[in-house]
Amino acid sequence: MAVYTEVSDDELRDFMAAYDLGNLLSCKGIAEGVENSNFLIVTDYSPFILTLYEKRVNEGDLPYFLGLMEHIADQGFTCPTPVRTREGEALRRLAGRPAAIVTFLTGMWPSRINTDHCAALGKALAEFHGAGADFPMTRPNNLSIGGWSALFDKIDRKAAGEVQPGLAEDIATELVFLQDSWPDDLPRGTIHGDLFPDNVFFENNTLTGFIDFYFACTDWLAYDIAVCLNAWCFEPSGSFVPARGRALLQAYQSVRKLTDAELAALPILARGAALRFLLTRLYDWINHLPGALVRKKDPLEYRRKLAFHQKVRTVADYGVQ
Amino acid sequence: MAVYTEVSDDELRDFMAAYDLGNLLSCKGIAEGVENSNFLIVTDYSPFILTLYEKRVNEGDLPYFLGLMEHIADQGFTCPTPVRTREGEALRRLAGRPAAIVTFLTGMWPSRINTDHCAALGKALAEFHGAGADFPMTRPNNLSIGGWSALFDKIDRKAAGEVQPGLAEDIATELVFLQDSWPDDLPRGTIHGDLFPDNVFFENNTLTGFIDFYFACTDWLAYDIAVCLNAWCFEPSGSFVPARGRALLQAYQSVRKLTDAELAALPILARGAALRFLLTRLYDWINHLPGALVRKKDPLEYRRKLAFHQKVRTVADYGVQ
Repeated sequence: MAVYTEVSDDELRDFMAAYDLGNLLSCKGIAEGVENSNFLIVTDYSPFILTLYEKRVNEGDLPYFLGLMEHIADQGFTCPTPVRTREGEALRRLAGRPAAIVTFLTGMWPSRINTDHCAALGKALAEFHGAGADFPMTRPNNLSIGGWSALFDKIDRKAAGEVQPGLAEDIATELVFLQDSWPDDLPRGTIHGDLFPDNVFFENNTLTGFIDFYFACTDWLAYDIAVCLNAWCFEPSGSFVPARGRALLQAYQSVRKLTDAELAALPILARGAALRFLLTRLYDWINHLPGALVRKKDPLEYRRKLAFHQKVRTVADYGVQ
Repeated sequence: MAVYTEVSDDELRDFMAAYDLGNLLSCKGIAEGVENSNFLIVTDYSPFILTLYEKRVNEGDLPYFLGLMEHIADQGFTCPTPVRTREGEALRRLAGRPAAIVTFLTGMWPSRINTDHCAALGKALAEFHGAGADFPMTRPNNLSIGGWSALFDKIDRKAAGEVQPGLAEDIATELVFLQDSWPDDLPRGTIHGDLFPDNVFFENNTLTGFIDFYFACTDWLAYDIAVCLNAWCFEPSGSFVPARGRALLQAYQSVRKLTDAELAALPILARGAALRFLLTRLYDWINHLPGALVRKKDPLEYRRKLAFHQKVRTVADYGVQ
């Protein structure tokens, strides 16, 4: 939760003059989003979201992210959609940062997950994969198997051991296992890559869309499902809820049937996804700057989820019958 | 900038059901407000602001603050106005905190102050004082002359000296001076008490209203002007801008003429206002918790402003001819 870059009213008015969005009535920084600064702007017409892209986002990737949102919106998948200026620009600069305005997606993220949410998520995820299928741009997944060793090398082993004794050794062992077992070939496409509950909006129990495409990339489609199994299908207490896993996978398959190879790979992909969030959270935990305006997330939540997946033998353990 | 209390979608939906505000479409935490948690909620009808009152606000004062906003809005002064439930309640509870919904005030605060802003502010301030004149409730100003000694006693002298050598001694001397010189009797009424630029909204150059009445209280009306002289009439470099002071005071007097006693007292009141913000900022600076989600404000900005007012002899030094 943070606004890293302040925008003055004068700068904002100049910036907004390039769009056909009516008069600017209000602008409030939003206490959401860890990577970027987000503002809710209200004009005569509607609310919009203004994003200033901060250090963690590679500027060269922005045309991919904005292009993807525009593409899937064109395909009828609801998501924040970049707004173009009268000159046709979507990506601009404001207060020294790359900046874009996107449409306002109504809905709120569900803080208490239930099976219906997981079913709605599974269906929407398969639709998103369908909408992204012919997106012509690609982007490697830097936070998948190819990037984990480099990330692990940046983590201080001693500090990791202070978070939990033996943690660095556990991660090293898991990395070797995953490098040996990671699938060679699965159906590939555009994935969201970070489909946590706070990136999925609902109005009452109806899913209204996805937000935050800034980890989107080209990878195995089933990896997105593996992220969702981690992020949506555990109780806060740490237990896996098979009814949620079943709802997610059945609803996904009602739109796109998973191949046998995908189903067989799911436990490995879920271990990989758990390790990915364990590594990034652990890195952020250890390298957290005092006074940073972001709440730290517990890396050990993902160590425990990883431990669950390590015991999974087949996809049936996720609730698929 | 902070949201201290998280509100779940379920809790919020239950809370909103008591109002006639249409369907809840969205809720975003706002990165504004140091004292309370603020959310921008969007319904079918309009945006609204939801405030959860946090520790710094005394719960017993809330009926005063909400009553004041309602009263001055009734008098035609634009400000966020409390929304009542179908049962007539304005002050309720949410997520364990006192909570209220107020209307959404359009406009943005001016980050680069000019003379026109100061003129608009002066006029609006006098109108606000007029609108509050017959407000029947009262509240003592705990952050005026009667409260400064107690606040100063809570500040660690050694830590103050580390902020600036001699700072504690300077404050002690100023306190004695102010206690000897503070006016006994001036026109009294409801004051805003914290009228900094971020509490005054403009659309283009038109003032749309005041926000944040959580320091409002009963005190000399001219003390509000003294706060504004401090908060609006200095350059970021630290120089006082007489043209702004003149614009502020002339515009104020176009609505309510200041008495001779008020004009004579203004330099003392301005010293007091500078000391008030020096003390609260110094306290917050020294007692800042590492990791707190609030940016610290420089106390020495107000030490320098105090030094300017200490050299002022009459109100003419503020630009009044």
